[in-house]
Amino acid sequence: MTTTALTNQQVRLAARPVGLPKRSDWKFTSEPVREPGDGEIVVKVLYLSLDPAMRGWMNEGKSYIRPVAIDEVMRAGGIGKVVASKSPKFAVGEYVSGGTGVQEYWVGPADDKTAAFYKVDPRMAPLPKYLNSLGMPGMTAYFGLLDVGQPKPGDTVVVSGAAGAVGQTVGQIAKHKGCRAIGIAGGKEKCDFVVNELGFDACIDYKNGSVREGLKQHCPTGVNVYFDNVGGDILDDVLAKLAMKARIVICGAISQYNNTTPVKGPANYLSLLVNRARMEGMVVFDYADRYHVAAAEMGKWMQAGTFQTREDIVKGLDTFPETLLMLFEGKNFGKLVLQVADEE
Amino acid sequence: MTTTALTNQQVRLAARPVGLPKRSDWKFTSEPVREPGDGEIVVKVLYLSLDPAMRGWMNEGKSYIRPVAIDEVMRAGGIGKVVASKSPKFAVGEYVSGGTGVQEYWVGPADDKTAAFYKVDPRMAPLPKYLNSLGMPGMTAYFGLLDVGQPKPGDTVVVSGAAGAVGQTVGQIAKHKGCRAIGIAGGKEKCDFVVNELGFDACIDYKNGSVREGLKQHCPTGVNVYFDNVGGDILDDVLAKLAMKARIVICGAISQYNNTTPVKGPANYLSLLVNRARMEGMVVFDYADRYHVAAAEMGKWMQAGTFQTREDIVKGLDTFPETLLMLFEGKNFGKLVLQVADEE
Repeated sequence: MTTTALTNQQVRLAARPVGLPKRSDWKFTSEPVREPGDGEIVVKVLYLSLDPAMRGWMNEGKSYIRPVAIDEVMRAGGIGKVVASKSPKFAVGEYVSGGTGVQEYWVGPADDKTAAFYKVDPRMAPLPKYLNSLGMPGMTAYFGLLDVGQPKPGDTVVVSGAAGAVGQTVGQIAKHKGCRAIGIAGGKEKCDFVVNELGFDACIDYKNGSVREGLKQHCPTGVNVYFDNVGGDILDDVLAKLAMKARIVICGAISQYNNTTPVKGPANYLSLLVNRARMEGMVVFDYADRYHVAAAEMGKWMQAGTFQTREDIVKGLDTFPETLLMLFEGKNFGKLVLQVADEE
Repeated sequence: MTTTALTNQQVRLAARPVGLPKRSDWKFTSEPVREPGDGEIVVKVLYLSLDPAMRGWMNEGKSYIRPVAIDEVMRAGGIGKVVASKSPKFAVGEYVSGGTGVQEYWVGPADDKTAAFYKVDPRMAPLPKYLNSLGMPGMTAYFGLLDVGQPKPGDTVVVSGAAGAVGQTVGQIAKHKGCRAIGIAGGKEKCDFVVNELGFDACIDYKNGSVREGLKQHCPTGVNVYFDNVGGDILDDVLAKLAMKARIVICGAISQYNNTTPVKGPANYLSLLVNRARMEGMVVFDYADRYHVAAAEMGKWMQAGTFQTREDIVKGLDTFPETLLMLFEGKNFGKLVLQVADEE
C-alpha cells in the first residue's frame, strides 16, 4: 500500500505540567505518513497503554528514563498492526507491541531499539491483554512481587491500587503462590470486583473507611509484603502494621505524582527499624530478559481459567489529555487503555 | 563483705518526657544495698553507656523493647565489678558487662536474663571500650554495616554521626573491608578527628556547609551504602545521591527522637525506585549469637593498631539528666560514657 495518503495524528508535549496535566500542556499535530525505507515498517496503532509512570516522564530531571522533550511525540507503549513493511522481520498484517508513542502511525526501522517491537498473537489472547497482564503492568507485578517482595506461602500480601493494572495482577499472583491477598482500592464496586472476580481474600475501601482499621481487621498478624503503587498516607498506614522482617516493594507513588508541594515522605519509616523490615524500589526494564518466564506462567494460569485481568478501554486519540487524568482521579477500573483505531 | 552498709543511689523515670528530657522527668532515690541471696551477686557499677536509643525507651508504645515504666530504674548497659557473690558464676573482683541500669549497685541472680551479665577482662582492653567498639555500638556497627549494608570492596560507604559511638566504628570497618569511607559530623574538630585519627577518606561538616555539596564532592559516583544514625534532612540529602542498587541501613534517627511534631519522613524516598535501592532497619539484639565473631575481628584490628575508638567520659551519676542531653545536642565527641565510680 501507499502510506503517503495516510495522515498521522500525533500528541506532543507542549509544556511541562504543574500539578495535573492540562489540555494546554499538549499539542495535537498531524503529518503525512512517509513511505518506509529499506528495513523499515509502518505500524498502525490500535491500543495505547496509559500509565501513571507517564506523569514522571513529563518532568525534567534525572530519573530511570530520560524525560520526554518539549514538542516530542508523547512516549507510550502500544499495540499495532504492521500496514507496510520493507523488513523481513515483520510482515504486513502482523501485530506488534512496542513503544509506538501517542500517535496513529509509527514509521521507522523494524529493529528500532527504543520502540523494541515484538510480535503478539491475537489468537492467544485479546490484544489489550498484551498491554496488561501480558505487558508491562503484568511484568511489573510479577517481578516486583516475586523478586523483590519474596512472598512465602502463608504470608499476608497487601497491594494498593488493587483494581488497577499492576494491583490486580499482584494479588492474583500472590494467591497462586499460596499467600493471603488483601487489596486496597477506592469504592465499593472496585472492592467487590477485587474480592468476587479476582479472588482476593479482602479489599479495603480507602474512600469509605479507615485503611488502618481495615488493616487491623484483615491483617491480624501484620503485613508480610506490601506492594506499593500509591505512596502517601496509605504507605504510612501500612508501615504502622508491618510484621517482622516485612518487605515493601516501591513500585510507584501515584498519590504524589502531581504534587506541586514536596513529596510526602513516609513519616512511619522507623517502623522498618523496629520490625527489621526493608523497603526496596524496582523498575520493570531490569527484568527484560525474563519477561518470557512471567508470560508463560501467567499465560498458563489464564488458560486454566484461574487468572483474569480487566481493562478499561476508552476510545479516541483526541480524548488522550482527559483519559490520562482518570489514572490520577482513581476513575479507571482495570488497566487503562486508549483505543486509537478499530481492529479490522 | 557486708553490703547493707552501702547506699545505692538510683535514677528512676518520673515522667514521660515531651521533647528533650528535663531534669524533672527523673527522680533520684536511694536505698540500702541488700545482701545477695543464694545464686545472687552484687555489682558495683563503674561505667554506664549513654545511647540515643534510651530516648525511645522512655516513650510509651510498642517498639523493639518494652518501655521503661514510670518509677522504674532507668535501663542502661554498664560495666561493673562484682563486690559480693553467692554464685559460682562470678567471683568477687571480677568485672562484668550487662544491663545494670542507671544506679550505683545492681543486686540479683547471677544468671538474670534481663541483665545478661558476662565477664570482661580489663587486661585485654580498657573497661570503657566494652561499652564502645567491644559493646553494643560496635556490634551495631559491625552487623548493621556488614549484614544489612553488604559493602563490596571499592564501594563508597557514608555514615552519619561519624564521630559518635556507632559511626566511628562503621567507617573503620568499611576501610578494613576495602571501601571508601565518608563521614558526616558536626564541627571541624570532629571532622578532623574522623579523617586524621580514624582514617576516613573524608568527613562532611554538616554544621558548616551543605551536606549535598559535600556528597557531590566526595561521592562522585554516588553512595553505595549509607549507614543512617540521624534521619531528617541528612537522610534526604543522601537519598538524592544514591548509586544504583544502593543499600541504606536504618540504625536510628537521633534528629527525630525528641520531636513534638510528627517524624519527618524521607521526602526523597522515591530515589529507592529510580535507583533500585533498598532501605532496611536493624536491631543489634538479633545478632547476639554472633557477637563473639565481631569482637574477635575488631579485637584483632585493635591489637594490630589499625583500629581505634574514642570515648567521651563524664563523671558522676548526679549529672545523668544533663549528660544524656549531650547526645541530642551533638556535644559528645566519641562514645558517651557516664563514669559512676572510680576503678580501684
